Amino acid sequence: MITREEQTARREQNAALTRTGAGTPMGDLLRRYWIPALIATELPEPDCPPIRAPLLGEKLVAFRDSEGRIALVDEFCAHRRVSLWFGRNEECGLRCAYHGWKFDVTGQCVDLPSEPEDSGVRQRMRIKSYPCIEQGGVIWAYMGPPELRPPPPGLEWSLTPAPQRFISKRFEACNFMQALEGGIDSSHVGFLHRGQFRRGETASQQIGAMIEGDSPVFEIEPYDGGLLIAARRKVADQYYWRVTPWIAPFHQLVPRRHDSSPIFGHSWVPIDDEHCWAWSYGYHPDRALTRAELADYRNGGGIFEKTLPGAFVPVANKDNHYLMDRNAQVAGIDFSGIAGIAAQDSSLQESMGKIVDRSLENLVATDRAIVMTRRSLLGAIAANRTGAPLPGLAPESQRVRSCGVTLATDIPFELGARTLLFPHRQTRREERAGAAE
Amino acid sequence: MITREEQTARREQNAALTRTGAGTPMGDLLRRYWIPALIATELPEPDCPPIRAPLLGEKLVAFRDSEGRIALVDEFCAHRRVSLWFGRNEECGLRCAYHGWKFDVTGQCVDLPSEPEDSGVRQRMRIKSYPCIEQGGVIWAYMGPPELRPPPPGLEWSLTPAPQRFISKRFEACNFMQALEGGIDSSHVGFLHRGQFRRGETASQQIGAMIEGDSPVFEIEPYDGGLLIAARRKVADQYYWRVTPWIAPFHQLVPRRHDSSPIFGHSWVPIDDEHCWAWSYGYHPDRALTRAELADYRNGGGIFEKTLPGAFVPVANKDNHYLMDRNAQVAGIDFSGIAGIAAQDSSLQESMGKIVDRSLENLVATDRAIVMTRRSLLGAIAANRTGAPLPGLAPESQRVRSCGVTLATDIPFELGARTLLFPHRQTRREERAGAAE
Amino acid sequence: MITREEQTARREQNAALTRTGAGTPMGDLLRRYWIPALIATELPEPDCPPIRAPLLGEKLVAFRDSEGRIALVDEFCAHRRVSLWFGRNEECGLRCAYHGWKFDVTGQCVDLPSEPEDSGVRQRMRIKSYPCIEQGGVIWAYMGPPELRPPPPGLEWSLTPAPQRFISKRFEACNFMQALEGGIDSSHVGFLHRGQFRRGETASQQIGAMIEGDSPVFEIEPYDGGLLIAARRKVADQYYWRVTPWIAPFHQLVPRRHDSSPIFGHSWVPIDDEHCWAWSYGYHPDRALTRAELADYRNGGGIFEKTLPGAFVPVANKDNHYLMDRNAQVAGIDFSGIAGIAAQDSSLQESMGKIVDRSLENLVATDRAIVMTRRSLLGAIAANRTGAPLPGLAPESQRVRSCGVTLATDIPFELGARTLLFPHRQTRREERAGAAE
Repeated sequence: MITREEQTARREQNAALTRTGAGTPMGDLLRRYWIPALIATELPEPDCPPIRAPLLGEKLVAFRDSEGRIALVDEFCAHRRVSLWFGRNEECGLRCAYHGWKFDVTGQCVDLPSEPEDSGVRQRMRIKSYPCIEQGGVIWAYMGPPELRPPPPGLEWSLTPAPQRFISKRFEACNFMQALEGGIDSSHVGFLHRGQFRRGETASQQIGAMIEGDSPVFEIEPYDGGLLIAARRKVADQYYWRVTPWIAPFHQLVPRRHDSSPIFGHSWVPIDDEHCWAWSYGYHPDRALTRAELADYRNGGGIFEKTLPGAFVPVANKDNHYLMDRNAQVAGIDFSGIAGIAAQDSSLQESMGKIVDRSLENLVATDRAIVMTRRSLLGAIAANRTGAPLPGLAPESQRVRSCGVTLATDIPFELGARTLLFPHRQTRREERAGAAE
Repeated sequence: MITREEQTARREQNAALTRTGAGTPMGDLLRRYWIPALIATELPEPDCPPIRAPLLGEKLVAFRDSEGRIALVDEFCAHRRVSLWFGRNEECGLRCAYHGWKFDVTGQCVDLPSEPEDSGVRQRMRIKSYPCIEQGGVIWAYMGPPELRPPPPGLEWSLTPAPQRFISKRFEACNFMQALEGGIDSSHVGFLHRGQFRRGETASQQIGAMIEGDSPVFEIEPYDGGLLIAARRKVADQYYWRVTPWIAPFHQLVPRRHDSSPIFGHSWVPIDDEHCWAWSYGYHPDRALTRAELADYRNGGGIFEKTLPGAFVPVANKDNHYLMDRNAQVAGIDFSGIAGIAAQDSSLQESMGKIVDRSLENLVATDRAIVMTRRSLLGAIAANRTGAPLPGLAPESQRVRSCGVTLATDIPFELGARTLLFPHRQTRREERAGAAE
Repeated sequence: MITREEQTARREQNAALTRTGAGTPMGDLLRRYWIPALIATELPEPDCPPIRAPLLGEKLVAFRDSEGRIALVDEFCAHRRVSLWFGRNEECGLRCAYHGWKFDVTGQCVDLPSEPEDSGVRQRMRIKSYPCIEQGGVIWAYMGPPELRPPPPGLEWSLTPAPQRFISKRFEACNFMQALEGGIDSSHVGFLHRGQFRRGETASQQIGAMIEGDSPVFEIEPYDGGLLIAARRKVADQYYWRVTPWIAPFHQLVPRRHDSSPIFGHSWVPIDDEHCWAWSYGYHPDRALTRAELADYRNGGGIFEKTLPGAFVPVANKDNHYLMDRNAQVAGIDFSGIAGIAAQDSSLQESMGKIVDRSLENLVATDRAIVMTRRSLLGAIAANRTGAPLPGLAPESQRVRSCGVTLATDIPFELGARTLLFPHRQTRREERAGAAE
């Protein structure tokens, strides 16, 4: 069906999209952004145990020093490459258990017991270290060139007070692009997750249209943060729009059910090329989350998922066939016998293999969000080479919300939904007014 | 001991014999035949759950549709390569859980919810599908070029009524050629399996000769189905012959103990190049199997083997050292401390590694059956390239039986055993008479 | 920090040091020596079960024949490469379970049932076999060219009567050089193992200096067996020396605590390039080990380690994080939360990965023993090519002891400690006297 040349091109594109190690085009691009590395509570207090924190194919170890500063450093000691996971976190540094070399949060060796201090040897010893910040309950790492380090993230959830947000992550055994493409693909919601929507609440006319009606029509508009992915469905004589912003490089917001509901979102972060963290968060910009909401999220409700005690591995995983129930699949209203949105997504994304061969796929009209996102990422890779601006890098470009909104058929969604999507931005009229002052 | 050149030639032959993927010489040959793919009861009823059914290195999924038709199709959806094992088998098709694309038994996409029917997109979407038939309690697949599809199998057991046969399969963790060569190698029976023969029945003089006497003399005669492998032993002043037909490409019949006993046989089918299905069957051409016989077979008696509940993995397997009992090995009458013919065979075949390096072997006179079978298969590979006839492809060529028979020393076995081996074929005299009518 | 060229050179050196298969430079060197292959009790009596005994990347099987002779032979039968581990050890030979071929301790086929004896076929069949000797409770194998086979080992512990020694081994999941370098690296003792020394006995002034004082100064002197690695610490106005002899290619002695304590030592033997045996032994040259000493060693005290029942895998291993206790690490006096010298060493050596990339290390002054040992081994590799003498090959060159000794600052350790290190050798004066007689 496709030519050999075309297939080679597709395979090259696949490699460009999925390889994230240092020095790869995508790896270099991702390293320009702040990356969610850990839930802040994984390093609960000063001098707590170090933990392994591999990211983008690099083996790293994280610790919080005596003064609360966060370190994300090479897992292996500069001396003879022993794992520092076995080290002792003590008095503002991580001390290797082998010969007692000690490194501070910057990766600098601050004690090398066997060498006289004036030999200068200690001073020359350092391990790779990445700057980290703590924001929104998450530890963020910057793994790129120091001179290009951007300001802290502007993602709204990360700037929201703790009582207004809930953060979780789960392990997914596939390349981050498979998970990311699942996230931005609104078209599967009405199939894979239809049971959730039917059961989840008194089905509004809008939700009914989403899971029962015709296929949505997709409109995709670029914005400075990435892409606004809008799915349009006819409800009575209006359009019901669901807008899923993709924020470069790997963030995404789930459409709100209604204007006063919490906003949900994901970040899909490569651990290495065959595993990723699926971050999930819910927040409300204006109020604390309720006790019932928090209980639901902790219990694996909505987009969240129950994980094994002391780990971030889902209870329902490949080893137990995601607890699939074939009877439920047959009897139920959805196509999957698997319970829960996250497990449904993980099961299918992992079923594609560690890195799916995109040269074999057959994309259709409803995959336009995927096509556009790939194109944006490949464009950003090119921009990163030439020094052109990158989408979603400036904090203000990340200030966007998802929304669901019903509009008259003649109003473009990016106009009609503007204040819902960008409540923090001035309208052009306000801008002009501001400029005139 | 052997030259470098000779070793290179041996390694190339090894690759030719063991690689079964699409496009390999052996893979192309095997794809000319009907292949046992599943026990029919693995797909017990219309709309039952789909199951994974990998064959010859291809990842496939099988299902039985609402009308009872059997499908063997690509495991992965044409759209974005999600596993269809997670799909729902419903109303004459398997529906992918991701976006609801639905495929029928021919692999044709019959529903693509997001596309208007008149766009023609759905019609262009299809997944690889192989025709299947159900015969003799087995689902057979044909994976070759459609125009070369042969008539249904003529193997006698597959044409025998259900009460007269017993079918089973077990997983073996090695290349199919290792298992096949074990099957056609009569010379190991008197060693590896001698305990079974001694314990199994009141030892006849013939069986006594087999396990106690001198090495047999092998005579191997080609026939249109493959090879007649005959082992000759002197009993009193006659020859006791045991004839093990190999039916190309991977079927084999075990010699009958006496004319009225059931006939046993195996098929060795590649799952991929490092794993195979060892099919085992017993049937009686003239009568129903007795309750005692069936109970014995289900209990792992004779050539059969007990497998783990809900799986086809033997209870005695590599992980538990095949339940080897060193004391039994020392005290017993056989050389293996392992109980059961099948476990004995599996243990040694798997001990050779996934694909044994045949360049290192030292074959002797009693390995002639193995040498001839390899030669036949390599000949068939060549014939497949040039379009010449293939052994064992025509159904009538598969109508052969195993036998054990005592003959005067001056009678060639293929003459003296002809009516036992080929009861369905006319003798030449009958043929001539028939032609004269 | 280092040039590309330098890094390439380092990587080549790393390969030279760590690859031990047949035909590799290090593999060829190691094959010049007697190698500890098994604890003698692993083959407890004549005709006991055969066991797998892989060494230096070669898959081998060992057995003790009816006359008590030890065999170390190819794991796979000459005939069709079935594992002889499944064979029966009987009447002076190991009989393959498949076709009954039988091999004696020399690897010669002594029975080939299917072939007439006068055909000469049996006589031509043999499997690889390595000569073995039993000495000091250990089965030693020689895997090198027959004409270069050295006299039996001269290592003192192996020549000591059974009541005076204790032998054990444990499995380590990394390359043997990582374990060897841990063994000769005295500089980590005061850090990684400091808890053991503090708890182990009433701390003498000398031991106190070792774990509390300044870094030791290392002096390394070659001797005919390898290297004398001496660590010097100031105690009052004298030097406290601890001497750790490395005996080529992979033996090492632990410094004695005092002149009347047992001597401990290790051998680090490649199973393959990613796994090794860590042999540990304790012996007293002059007296039987006490009941208390033996109980302590069996219980995993000192350098010894508890292993899983029926195996040589440590109870504390990677799968259980070496039973690390983070609280003990924080509260304790050592840098590791892991109990026991051997588990401390294994945890860190295995944490480096199967084969550490030495091109990334940063060696300092206290690593001189490691640098010198590598240099010696690379020198020995070169000597092996040219036929020059090899360190540690002659039995008398292996007659060395470890020691701890306090000397006046102006006395070179190799002079002051000579009678402790080499009690079996004459002093030069004695030699001269002897020569004069």
